[in-house]
Amino acid sequence: MTQWIRYRVNGKAGFGTLSGDTIAEHSGDMFASPKATGQTLKLASVEVLPPSEPTKVIALWNNFRELAAKLKQSIPPEPLYLMKANSSISSPNTTIKRPKSYSGKVVYEGELGIVIGKTCTNASEDEAAKAIFGYTCVNDITAAEIISKDESFAQWVRAKSFDGFGPFGPVVATGIDPTKESVRLVLNGAERQNYKLSDMIFPPHKLVSLLSHDMTLNPGDLICCGTSIGVGTMKEPTNTMDVTIEGIGTLHNVYEN
Amino acid sequence: MTQWIRYRVNGKAGFGTLSGDTIAEHSGDMFASPKATGQTLKLASVEVLPPSEPTKVIALWNNFRELAAKLKQSIPPEPLYLMKANSSISSPNTTIKRPKSYSGKVVYEGELGIVIGKTCTNASEDEAAKAIFGYTCVNDITAAEIISKDESFAQWVRAKSFDGFGPFGPVVATGIDPTKESVRLVLNGAERQNYKLSDMIFPPHKLVSLLSHDMTLNPGDLICCGTSIGVGTMKEPTNTMDVTIEGIGTLHNVYEN
Repeated sequence: MTQWIRYRVNGKAGFGTLSGDTIAEHSGDMFASPKATGQTLKLASVEVLPPSEPTKVIALWNNFRELAAKLKQSIPPEPLYLMKANSSISSPNTTIKRPKSYSGKVVYEGELGIVIGKTCTNASEDEAAKAIFGYTCVNDITAAEIISKDESFAQWVRAKSFDGFGPFGPVVATGIDPTKESVRLVLNGAERQNYKLSDMIFPPHKLVSLLSHDMTLNPGDLICCGTSIGVGTMKEPTNTMDVTIEGIGTLHNVYEN
Repeated sequence: MTQWIRYRVNGKAGFGTLSGDTIAEHSGDMFASPKATGQTLKLASVEVLPPSEPTKVIALWNNFRELAAKLKQSIPPEPLYLMKANSSISSPNTTIKRPKSYSGKVVYEGELGIVIGKTCTNASEDEAAKAIFGYTCVNDITAAEIISKDESFAQWVRAKSFDGFGPFGPVVATGIDPTKESVRLVLNGAERQNYKLSDMIFPPHKLVSLLSHDMTLNPGDLICCGTSIGVGTMKEPTNTMDVTIEGIGTLHNVYEN
């Protein structure tokens, strides 16, 4: 298992592998034979960036059996998804502010994220498995009252694309099997989500294969696997959100109303 | 009025201004003080590229009064939109092929495209007007039978994001008022769409202002203004599609079933 991290130090972006609190700097392309430079950095000395630079962010809806049962949704025969704007991407440890134009409920959604490592089109499940670089934590923040505000058109993209609403990280972990893990979301110190990833309707290899039949997936692209039960509104003036998946670590952000 | 074009020649991308069949090569950033190099190229000698490199593609639904009336949709109080994947972007003059995974109806949609020139957040209409770099032609190709295939979730993003389904160009025209123009779409030599852009529910300055309250718009971003009446299925084995807007020119592509 390797944890890849992107960071900024002295105004310059870099990337490397994380062991404990030490980053081993690398050069080249994270997805194509990156090389260790021999330099190391302390994690505390850098600004952590999102661990990849997606050309697109795909976000699943209704991908967990337990949530589907609770919401009385049937199991979809194919993945159902929207996209989050790239401009919604934000870094671990940052503070996300309420959009000026929206006064309704804002919810957290702890999720598994898949980071693509190789260009992938019409891939079989085996090919899809090889195209996956690794896994990350996602907080798919959502302006919940926008989704069904208009009766004629569900506004999924808009509700999930406000600036800052797409933090992910802190690392991309390679060589892990996330389907053995759980997603845990802690809001203001209290656990709100703790669900097993084995409950996914479309697990990662199958999901990437199916999505790659709809569109070409590129290195760095992020697929948010959807959330399960425990989504809730952030009501405090300042809300701390921690999404944890074993092997990846904790994605920490603050949301201010 | 200036027409900006991007192109590839000898394997290298470049950009410049187009006058008749001659390109005046420029260097630097198209959106920030580009400089003429003094070199010229013949249009016929280059491969034309999409005239910008969007970080996102926003596509409007229900933005024309005439189509709203025909479909018995009410006039929306706010813009309703989805996103097309960046991987759907294709160049003028290219051939777009039926997705291998889809056997249903594929439709053309001739549209006006807005290309953003300056980073734009929470902009007034005046600020939005200044953030617009120029205008282009869009063909918002759509796998129509996917949209409502699932009863629980309208699949707008998926239906419009297949590889190649987002051609735009051939140029970005600056210094034009598109609301005085019409969008004309000719399929296999027969006119299928010819609608006035003055019929837009959210015209460009207002639209960019409102969208910028939802998310930050970046230089190069493309906003597809939605289509009006005359959308139809492409039934021939090979279909030529020409989207024309006065001042911008004709976006020509081929769709093969």
